[in-house]
Amino acid sequence: MKAMRVGLIGLGTVGRGTLEVLRRNRTEIERRAGRPIEVVRVAVRNVARAQAIVGSDVAVSADPFDVVRDDSIGIVAELMGGTELARELVLEAIRGGKHVVTANKALLALHGNEIFAAAEQAGVMVAFEPAVAGGIPIIKALREGLTANRIEWVAGIVNGTTNFILSEMRERGAGFDEVLAQAQALGYAEADPSFDVDGVDAAHKATILAAIAFGMPVRFDAAHVEGISRLQPADIRYAERLGYRIKLLAIARRREDAVELRVHPTLIPARRLLASVEGPMNAVMVMGDAVGTTLYYGKGAGAEPTASSVIADLVDVTRLHTADPEHRVPHLAFQPSALDDLKVLPIDAVLTSFYLRLRVADQPGVLAEIARILAEAHISIDALFQREPVEGETQTEIILLTHETIEGNMNRALVRIEALPTVLEPAIRLRLEQLAD
Amino acid sequence: MKAMRVGLIGLGTVGRGTLEVLRRNRTEIERRAGRPIEVVRVAVRNVARAQAIVGSDVAVSADPFDVVRDDSIGIVAELMGGTELARELVLEAIRGGKHVVTANKALLALHGNEIFAAAEQAGVMVAFEPAVAGGIPIIKALREGLTANRIEWVAGIVNGTTNFILSEMRERGAGFDEVLAQAQALGYAEADPSFDVDGVDAAHKATILAAIAFGMPVRFDAAHVEGISRLQPADIRYAERLGYRIKLLAIARRREDAVELRVHPTLIPARRLLASVEGPMNAVMVMGDAVGTTLYYGKGAGAEPTASSVIADLVDVTRLHTADPEHRVPHLAFQPSALDDLKVLPIDAVLTSFYLRLRVADQPGVLAEIARILAEAHISIDALFQREPVEGETQTEIILLTHETIEGNMNRALVRIEALPTVLEPAIRLRLEQLAD
Repeated sequence: MKAMRVGLIGLGTVGRGTLEVLRRNRTEIERRAGRPIEVVRVAVRNVARAQAIVGSDVAVSADPFDVVRDDSIGIVAELMGGTELARELVLEAIRGGKHVVTANKALLALHGNEIFAAAEQAGVMVAFEPAVAGGIPIIKALREGLTANRIEWVAGIVNGTTNFILSEMRERGAGFDEVLAQAQALGYAEADPSFDVDGVDAAHKATILAAIAFGMPVRFDAAHVEGISRLQPADIRYAERLGYRIKLLAIARRREDAVELRVHPTLIPARRLLASVEGPMNAVMVMGDAVGTTLYYGKGAGAEPTASSVIADLVDVTRLHTADPEHRVPHLAFQPSALDDLKVLPIDAVLTSFYLRLRVADQPGVLAEIARILAEAHISIDALFQREPVEGETQTEIILLTHETIEGNMNRALVRIEALPTVLEPAIRLRLEQLAD
Repeated sequence: MKAMRVGLIGLGTVGRGTLEVLRRNRTEIERRAGRPIEVVRVAVRNVARAQAIVGSDVAVSADPFDVVRDDSIGIVAELMGGTELARELVLEAIRGGKHVVTANKALLALHGNEIFAAAEQAGVMVAFEPAVAGGIPIIKALREGLTANRIEWVAGIVNGTTNFILSEMRERGAGFDEVLAQAQALGYAEADPSFDVDGVDAAHKATILAAIAFGMPVRFDAAHVEGISRLQPADIRYAERLGYRIKLLAIARRREDAVELRVHPTLIPARRLLASVEGPMNAVMVMGDAVGTTLYYGKGAGAEPTASSVIADLVDVTRLHTADPEHRVPHLAFQPSALDDLKVLPIDAVLTSFYLRLRVADQPGVLAEIARILAEAHISIDALFQREPVEGETQTEIILLTHETIEGNMNRALVRIEALPTVLEPAIRLRLEQLAD
């Protein structure tokens, strides 16, 4: 059968990985797809260097618009990153009737609604498995594998850099800055790490996961985003003592007619499989009303794991491109006409449990006053311990876990607690999720 | 859009779960599939009882052939089990131009080649996500999510009954018979448990996984099958001391131009996520050359988890039924013309590491003789310890782990070891897999 002709924009880590795997597993892939999948044109700044990599049978352009305007091409794989030029290129490819595969989570989190609408209109597919959790086929699981379910929540470790840092902080008891420097030396963190450590990358992915889990537009603007840079080793240690580990979770949860969409450091029970996901690995838990909890684990980044998802999408599009558009898998899992513009709750309205660490004067009655304020706010205490006071010190710390409450309620209680003369510093406060069936 | 009309054969646990979830999540499912999915006819022995369950708008027949011959039906869901009548029904449905969804692993492991060939000829789909690992979308992951990869191996905990028994044996130090009785009382094991505990059910699933991982026909006849009924608590304990857990694994591994297909109790490193899969949960690890190892975890049985997969298949078929057959996902992941009749290696030719427990006379030189025989067979020892001899006893036990070797080679070495006058009983021998990237 005739080959599917592919154009590649960008020849960085993922682009080169895609070329390499397409070549190495050419036979295997053709046996599955029913026809060869061939990269025929690549766009990249340094043409001479690229030509040496791709060989003489692939055309190389400096101008990425050469790829999206090449009428011999059936699928454009956008692997360059960035949001403005990438948006223009993807939209032009779509208008030209080309299918698109993209690894660009920022692009979809920011411009997904516009891009998917354009794709509907043009009758083409925009596939994006590589945009979330690298090689793990989590988009496919949610969009196709769990279609029977009302999805209750999705919680994922979707950023390898921060998971590596948290794993190292826990194992070595080291501080954030020290471990970040190590991660940079090892190539697990960028020179400018803010995109990862501030949670932005994870929030892009959470945005996409929420959209396909609940059938809603992408709403990155409404996501609550907190990173890990202020996390202290002491809290990792105390959490462990209480049977929990701290992970940067991307969380999307259904709440009646609204959803929660948030990224922040989170205590999770150490006995959950998700808590054992260490180093740069990724994993996503999905809770559906019929299936219960399921988990998907694998490498979240890297040349070949990401290429695995790029090529899976190329094969999918190759298999499906002759199907009439209304019978294809909808971009956001639900038919475009059936999307629901669910309200994203502000962080104040989010429902979670909490971990609190309070520096207090070491004197009788302190704990009773804190407990009274929490009780008046209808916040139940689930576990509590007091650090053994050091000889001669007049201060100590109280560490406690609460049951679920609305965050605004907790904030109001904390204002009262912090106003107590015996409470000496602002509270350290972390969110906690049980992630139970 | 017009509803997709479905006929259900069998109204046991899975059939009732499917009806329940289809009704409860009717809107959610229609928003995804683009049209309603309606069960219009059910076949079951006890018609009166069934009619009360399904309500008056669903036809109930005692004869399952009423379902496969009902020309208003687009998809037949075979949820009755068994292999002979189920085979006839599925083949007749296919010949009648109906798509089929089946949860029946025994049927596919034994008659899959015939059934898929008939489906190709009739241009219909046979979907079987519920046949392996209940609600986990592992068939979809392998057939569609990992198409870029040359799959190196698949290793799964795919039988909840045996995993529950092994978890309990480890936690409580109890014997197989005692825990089996408990599992039966809890409903985790059948009155006649042989299908589960002897590994047959897991082998059916391994057979299907091997076929879609490697693109080969189903070859249940060539699978090596061992169950857990002879496993002793002592070995679970010793394995733990060495950093391993014992799981009943379904393993399909590529070996040059042949494959290994086997089910047996297996030592796996305790630090692997798979080792932490406890109770009746299922999980499957897949190693692909590009993606590395990935893992899929969830409930492997039960009414609604299995219904989740039945309905995912109904939605898939509903989405894809208008696509021309050559552009659908091939039944065994690879195009029928591209299947490879790979040789399944006999168990003697399988390559694994081993755990050995030897009862020996407590006297000097015993260990040296055993080590010499292993060295002569080119079998390296990876770890070893000797049980501290009990005061007054003249016997002790040597426990050792080896590096990889061909099983036939190990068997020949064991014949020599067991012939030593200082080796007092036949060796206890278990296979060990590292499951590394």
